[in-house]
Amino acid sequence: MTMKSISSLSIDELQAFYNEAKQQYDAYRQKGVSINMARGKPSPQQLDLSNNLLDLKREDIGIKDADGNDVRNYGGLCGIPECRALFGEMMGVPADNVIAAGSSSLNLMYDYISQCCTHGTGGCDPWIFDNHRKFIAIVPGYDRHFAIAEYFGLQMISVPMTPTGPDMDRIEEIVKDPSVKGMFCVPKYSNPDGITYSPETVERIAAMRTAAPDFRVIWDEAYIVHDLYDEKDELANVFEFAEKYGTQNRFIAVASTSKITFAGAGVSAIVAFGDTLKEIKKRLSWQIISYDKMNQLRHCALYHSVADIQAQMKKHAEILRPKFDAVLDILHAELDGLEIATFNSPRGGYFISLNVNTGSAKYVGKLCSECGLTLTDVGATYPYGVDPNDANIRIAPSCPSVEELKTAAQILCSAVKIAACESLLGIQS
Amino acid sequence: MTMKSISSLSIDELQAFYNEAKQQYDAYRQKGVSINMARGKPSPQQLDLSNNLLDLKREDIGIKDADGNDVRNYGGLCGIPECRALFGEMMGVPADNVIAAGSSSLNLMYDYISQCCTHGTGGCDPWIFDNHRKFIAIVPGYDRHFAIAEYFGLQMISVPMTPTGPDMDRIEEIVKDPSVKGMFCVPKYSNPDGITYSPETVERIAAMRTAAPDFRVIWDEAYIVHDLYDEKDELANVFEFAEKYGTQNRFIAVASTSKITFAGAGVSAIVAFGDTLKEIKKRLSWQIISYDKMNQLRHCALYHSVADIQAQMKKHAEILRPKFDAVLDILHAELDGLEIATFNSPRGGYFISLNVNTGSAKYVGKLCSECGLTLTDVGATYPYGVDPNDANIRIAPSCPSVEELKTAAQILCSAVKIAACESLLGIQS
Repeated sequence: MTMKSISSLSIDELQAFYNEAKQQYDAYRQKGVSINMARGKPSPQQLDLSNNLLDLKREDIGIKDADGNDVRNYGGLCGIPECRALFGEMMGVPADNVIAAGSSSLNLMYDYISQCCTHGTGGCDPWIFDNHRKFIAIVPGYDRHFAIAEYFGLQMISVPMTPTGPDMDRIEEIVKDPSVKGMFCVPKYSNPDGITYSPETVERIAAMRTAAPDFRVIWDEAYIVHDLYDEKDELANVFEFAEKYGTQNRFIAVASTSKITFAGAGVSAIVAFGDTLKEIKKRLSWQIISYDKMNQLRHCALYHSVADIQAQMKKHAEILRPKFDAVLDILHAELDGLEIATFNSPRGGYFISLNVNTGSAKYVGKLCSECGLTLTDVGATYPYGVDPNDANIRIAPSCPSVEELKTAAQILCSAVKIAACESLLGIQS
Repeated sequence: MTMKSISSLSIDELQAFYNEAKQQYDAYRQKGVSINMARGKPSPQQLDLSNNLLDLKREDIGIKDADGNDVRNYGGLCGIPECRALFGEMMGVPADNVIAAGSSSLNLMYDYISQCCTHGTGGCDPWIFDNHRKFIAIVPGYDRHFAIAEYFGLQMISVPMTPTGPDMDRIEEIVKDPSVKGMFCVPKYSNPDGITYSPETVERIAAMRTAAPDFRVIWDEAYIVHDLYDEKDELANVFEFAEKYGTQNRFIAVASTSKITFAGAGVSAIVAFGDTLKEIKKRLSWQIISYDKMNQLRHCALYHSVADIQAQMKKHAEILRPKFDAVLDILHAELDGLEIATFNSPRGGYFISLNVNTGSAKYVGKLCSECGLTLTDVGATYPYGVDPNDANIRIAPSCPSVEELKTAAQILCSAVKIAACESLLGIQS
């Protein structure tokens, strides 16, 4: 059945609808739950999929990389060759353009921004000396990207997402300011919308003229192989477009196995070309002697190609898909037609993005929290933690069980209904 | 037998001595060797001592830390409690003051200097905005410390080592300049001299008044448990002195297992107190989600206390001691009494520091190199790679075999003799 828009209800019908939502909510509140849907963390069941990493014997791993170098010792700034090749295949670039690193791609992004702030890039002044330095923030987006920009004093200019990626008309205008130094992108299964940039969007990002010669795009391939369904989104290869337009220096791509193997003990990689790659290698030559190559070798003992990774991702999807489906089924059943919320149905990634009526997201979050349901801080998907519309809620279904998620989705839907009704009924919350 | 100073030889005696040295050198040169004594790398035999890390089974390690948190997942910014406790015991500080990190203490030092440059410390301006920012460079010293300072534009002021640590009279003068922001120290078995700072030196570093309120000492405990002999050097606890003088914010200590377990796949730690610790934690909250806690747990499965570490270090010493002894025996036999070189006999660490006649170290390095013997770049033990006296040569005996080291020491001694004789004989080299 499709429900009627609540704005078309009579006052009495609305009051009855409100009472029902409140009753449902109060019942959950009395029972009390403790469910955390705040972060995009893998569940223990997903982590169990990689326990074979812990079962590898010395004979399985060895101590030498493909070049015959002892991975136990110092050296090998760019990581072991087989690991560079594996990420190269996954990210669609030659192994020579990959640096295989430690466990955290966030760390790689942070370090890169830090490097641009202290040393500049492309022969330009260090960013820190530009008092008007700015970054584009695609919204809603990933709070930790925004946090890095904020920490380094990059004033953020919000650009909204569209179903094909960020609003490129806006971006092409904004980059006419030479103080606009770059942007973070999650081009496949974006956080939180689960949107994959269209080939046109990818091409425009590579093609656009920026006033800043040192404009940099951090291309965070966080969910590059993280499909939930057989029908997958396809992301165009940004480096191919960059080559076409001569903008290869503009892009820094990162990825990791955090959501392939272990979130806290995986391997990450950074990709760059030309002078941008040279600058990163130069900085690394002061910063480290080598990353943990043993963990790289351990991973390469299990994963020889992207086919191996994809087989693993299928297992992840089998655990994650029912969780996404459980939440989405309830969102559809409870909210379709009411015209009080919109949400997307991503084909991969880690989030469902729910947009409620303007000015009510914080209140919905509060209602959920009072029930024992923890959501990502409302506002976190916007720069400085402030959603100007107070409308976006990020749902992270990966960690709770399917049963918990059903409860959580019901609580969330009742909270969304309560907020919408109270607004229409003029009830102060 | 003790040899006569070559300056007391007659011209004929000197010429005969020179010919003999040259004959010995030429014989090695004709034979040709390929020996690398450049870096303080553990040998494969030392790395083998930690292969038990690779043999641990999943049951041995588990997946939970002492607090019951799943180490496979995100979280735990400061590392697992048992690893923090282990480093705390090793470094003489409470576990709460330790952050257990990734595989590289160099990375921790780099990141800390970078943080001070971009964000300042102790409420002061970021260092990068001080165009006269300076750092004290204790010489001879560790090239990678100097490289970090150079990369961040910290102008280095050299202060010589003495048998009790750096010349504190000089340092106490230099720190009257508010642009002098700090210094790196290797307080135990210093690189390359193998000198351990006396308690008086440690106390003066903690007690001294610095014009810069944001003066910071990077206390690199690289060789804190790296004794070669039963009679060990003892390092005073700098944090106890710092507490006495109220300068706890001044110190940032680092250590790692790079030369305890695997050079390229160990665990590192950083120690700080008060606001300095808070600033590091704050930065880390933007930089990472967590370090590789699995590798921390793996290490803690084998090392429960410093006693376990010391047992391991005894095994390292059994491999390293004969190597140091082989080099030192030949240096003594070939050079004692000639008054053309001095060298120390360290009780730990990774280096022997050889000082030859002023202006001849580069030439000695060239002679060695032409024989196939690679030394640490002459000059590298000084800021900007320039030894103003051209006198210091760092010998790293850890990697070659004892037989190779004997050959290397003979080549080196003949080169030192040749350089000294040619100088006295007025032969252009």
